[in-house]
Amino acid sequence: MNGAQSLIRTLADAGVEVCFANPGTSEMHFVAALDSVPGMRGVLGLFEGVVTGAADGYARIAGKPAATLLHLGPGLGNGLANLHNARRARTPIVNVVGDHATYHRRYDAPLDSDIEAVAGSLEGWVRRSEHAKDVGADAAAAVAAAQDAPGRIATLLLPADASWGEGGETAAPVPPRGPRAVDATTVRDVAGVLTGGEPVALITGGDACREAGLRATGRIAAATGARAFAETFPARLERGAGLPAIERLGYLGEQVAQQLDGVAHVVVAGAKAPASFFAYPGRPSDLVPEGARVHVLAEPGQDVPRALADLADLVAAGTEPVLQEPSRPALPSGPLTLQNWAEVIGALLPERAIIADEANTSGLALPAATAGAPRHDVLTLTGGAIGFGMPVATGAAVAAPDRPVIDLQSDGSAMYTISALWTQAREDLDVTTVLLNNGAYAILRLELQRVGADGGPKAAELLDLSRPEIDFVGIAEGMGVPATRATTAEELAEQFRRALAEPGPHLIDAIVPPLL
Amino acid sequence: MNGAQSLIRTLADAGVEVCFANPGTSEMHFVAALDSVPGMRGVLGLFEGVVTGAADGYARIAGKPAATLLHLGPGLGNGLANLHNARRARTPIVNVVGDHATYHRRYDAPLDSDIEAVAGSLEGWVRRSEHAKDVGADAAAAVAAAQDAPGRIATLLLPADASWGEGGETAAPVPPRGPRAVDATTVRDVAGVLTGGEPVALITGGDACREAGLRATGRIAAATGARAFAETFPARLERGAGLPAIERLGYLGEQVAQQLDGVAHVVVAGAKAPASFFAYPGRPSDLVPEGARVHVLAEPGQDVPRALADLADLVAAGTEPVLQEPSRPALPSGPLTLQNWAEVIGALLPERAIIADEANTSGLALPAATAGAPRHDVLTLTGGAIGFGMPVATGAAVAAPDRPVIDLQSDGSAMYTISALWTQAREDLDVTTVLLNNGAYAILRLELQRVGADGGPKAAELLDLSRPEIDFVGIAEGMGVPATRATTAEELAEQFRRALAEPGPHLIDAIVPPLL
Repeated sequence: MNGAQSLIRTLADAGVEVCFANPGTSEMHFVAALDSVPGMRGVLGLFEGVVTGAADGYARIAGKPAATLLHLGPGLGNGLANLHNARRARTPIVNVVGDHATYHRRYDAPLDSDIEAVAGSLEGWVRRSEHAKDVGADAAAAVAAAQDAPGRIATLLLPADASWGEGGETAAPVPPRGPRAVDATTVRDVAGVLTGGEPVALITGGDACREAGLRATGRIAAATGARAFAETFPARLERGAGLPAIERLGYLGEQVAQQLDGVAHVVVAGAKAPASFFAYPGRPSDLVPEGARVHVLAEPGQDVPRALADLADLVAAGTEPVLQEPSRPALPSGPLTLQNWAEVIGALLPERAIIADEANTSGLALPAATAGAPRHDVLTLTGGAIGFGMPVATGAAVAAPDRPVIDLQSDGSAMYTISALWTQAREDLDVTTVLLNNGAYAILRLELQRVGADGGPKAAELLDLSRPEIDFVGIAEGMGVPATRATTAEELAEQFRRALAEPGPHLIDAIVPPLL
Repeated sequence: MNGAQSLIRTLADAGVEVCFANPGTSEMHFVAALDSVPGMRGVLGLFEGVVTGAADGYARIAGKPAATLLHLGPGLGNGLANLHNARRARTPIVNVVGDHATYHRRYDAPLDSDIEAVAGSLEGWVRRSEHAKDVGADAAAAVAAAQDAPGRIATLLLPADASWGEGGETAAPVPPRGPRAVDATTVRDVAGVLTGGEPVALITGGDACREAGLRATGRIAAATGARAFAETFPARLERGAGLPAIERLGYLGEQVAQQLDGVAHVVVAGAKAPASFFAYPGRPSDLVPEGARVHVLAEPGQDVPRALADLADLVAAGTEPVLQEPSRPALPSGPLTLQNWAEVIGALLPERAIIADEANTSGLALPAATAGAPRHDVLTLTGGAIGFGMPVATGAAVAAPDRPVIDLQSDGSAMYTISALWTQAREDLDVTTVLLNNGAYAILRLELQRVGADGGPKAAELLDLSRPEIDFVGIAEGMGVPATRATTAEELAEQFRRALAEPGPHLIDAIVPPLL
């Protein structure tokens, strides 16, 4: 058994069943070894940002890591932005980065670079397997490291000779470290805050944004009157009819100021104390209201849902959460607006949908329009590195072939990782992309105003995507994805219905006005 | 004057006239400041790999750096692969990477990451401007550092508050360090090797692949019988009728073994001693023939063309180089083959063309087919990170609006940075892309064989691009570039002629068979 075979067998034995791959020469033995291990599926991406984003989306839905296969430092570099998002989502991922043979590195061949430095920037787990006999054990350690609570990116550097060398040994799975318990004193202290008679905001994050955490949060809010929020960009937020409706903290500081206005205490549970996404001249970075105290119920890596349940048992015994009633917007009509496209989605969202949300400025109406829709998951842009929606939707669809995946996708962001469409076509994934085509980096027009910068025509030019207009129908069909264009709510509804009814990927180029 | 204004004025004063940009919120003051400086042109790319590749192509042709504008760590990450190629080309580039305001970093906001670690992997120059008043001086230092011989990547991290803060001061240009002279003893020693009666190979690289270096090399070869080669992947190789024809070292070790067979001495001038691009089981990494001695005439950073001229004066006084005769292949006919598409290019290559060569396995016939064409420049894939051709062609066209730019582009490689087409359309650049569409990662099929790995159907699947077929006509037109498809030599000739005759970008989707 060579090192590559021991690697893939070890990964498969540890439950890693999918490898999103963009291989090169140094990975050829890994590629060849895929055929000798039945438990591993290889999924090709045409760009590494697709590969890493797909691994993120896969793990957010599957609840376990996929592997990636990347080609030396430049391959890791191309994958870095979506690994950044995955780091912020605390998504477990096992990167396998092929490298030159150990004895080849001293020649400083063209593709040689400091891979460790780049991998290290992800603040996860990094190891280089120097010998074929170590590869299996290193792979088992990587899978465990990725899954140690709360989840991280593990990067295994695989020199070509460790991959092709004989003497590989499959290693048994290493159990990952589960979440640490929150001690009872902390829970009691926070219970005291919640029942102390002063206004409290409770901000939850991480896996507290899934059903158990939401129910506990809903009970606490119902019993104590605390205002409950999910963090601004949760990795996976469960919502819809039948679940407690927990509002997300806003992206803009002004929104957060309004949401937290008047609170004397901010309790965080698996989330950070609120801070501005960006800094702005003359505006605060720290969004904790002046004079309010921050209390940490649980940190990421602790058992946040359990702590919330314990807290609920103390302050909300016998109280049930308020659940979202089923309700959908009426199907709208007329030319597409920023309001009515979201109503179309809310009106037609299928059962058990997974939404990859990279709608950005076009999506402001979306939370309200979908609040009472059937229960669904929303995957958000945790790290702010745009180009996440199409790959994450791709990976989510691999993880859940029985669920409809809907990518609500800004035009500018789409262009970073557009070749994800090809992987969707190749794998026949049930992804419906609603491409919100406003011909602009509208978020930057907003931000240019907000930072107080006066731009002239050159500045405006750098925020414009309309010259030339991007025809996403042509691009999608060029990559094998059936596509249509919608300019009215009626067209969007008809095309969205049809896309959901047919298997496989579809794209709807929805022409919407820019926010500004 | 704010920091951003001082930055752009300093760059423009130092001769940096173009900024390839993909900005975000933290760069908004830089974007706004563009309108206050007439000497700086902003060129938008929809993905940072396009931005950095364009900066590489620009500088290879303009002979001076462009700036890039990138958005925090993920933006730099997306640009890293083409910066890797630029590092290997020793291309001067000034990256401006926007970062959070200095006081904002302690909040560990979603887009925060270790930018220094990633920038440091480029082994160039990295500095963070902490205050608006320092930005001008730091920018002047960055431009000089980028241009210090032999050229490197300078990365200036620009916190948002240093950008928007008042007190910016324009700094005068700092003269870069020119190349160091090669001492006369070294030249004499190498002259002794060349005239010593034993067979010698002379391998040149860097700026020795331009006219002056080629002429000196040609004289030396003519006078001494030395076999002259250019390095495998020169940043910019001048060639064609009227210049000495210097063959490039091969990509495969077997080719190099044949080229260097029997030599007793290898003289390197601005190039490395030959080594294999990748390691292969049972094959040597070191490609210097056994028993041959390596002599360094000049290293990168030294004045390599001058050293070659001095050497020529010693060993080739009165000898003229053998110049390439004008000659073109006849226009071929019939279905496209790996031979005849290259002949079409050779037959029709216009005067003063710039070729971005990412033809990879489809381009094996190209050097011979274009050898006697009118004089032209070839820009090659110096660092092996694919996805270089479209962006580099884009930047070259910005640098030389009066020259035809031809991107000979593999399909797989094209998909990494395909949105460069949109920038070509937006800027109305005279780039003709010949998209060599073989439906495969053919290089990896070759490499899978060469590394001795036995792949089965799963392996074959990861090297296949034909399911679904990629329709580059649809994709190009979707991004505003007129496109046609060619399946025969006649069609390619007709479409290539027409593309050259019309201004602005064109793409020809040339359906070719895979090498294997």
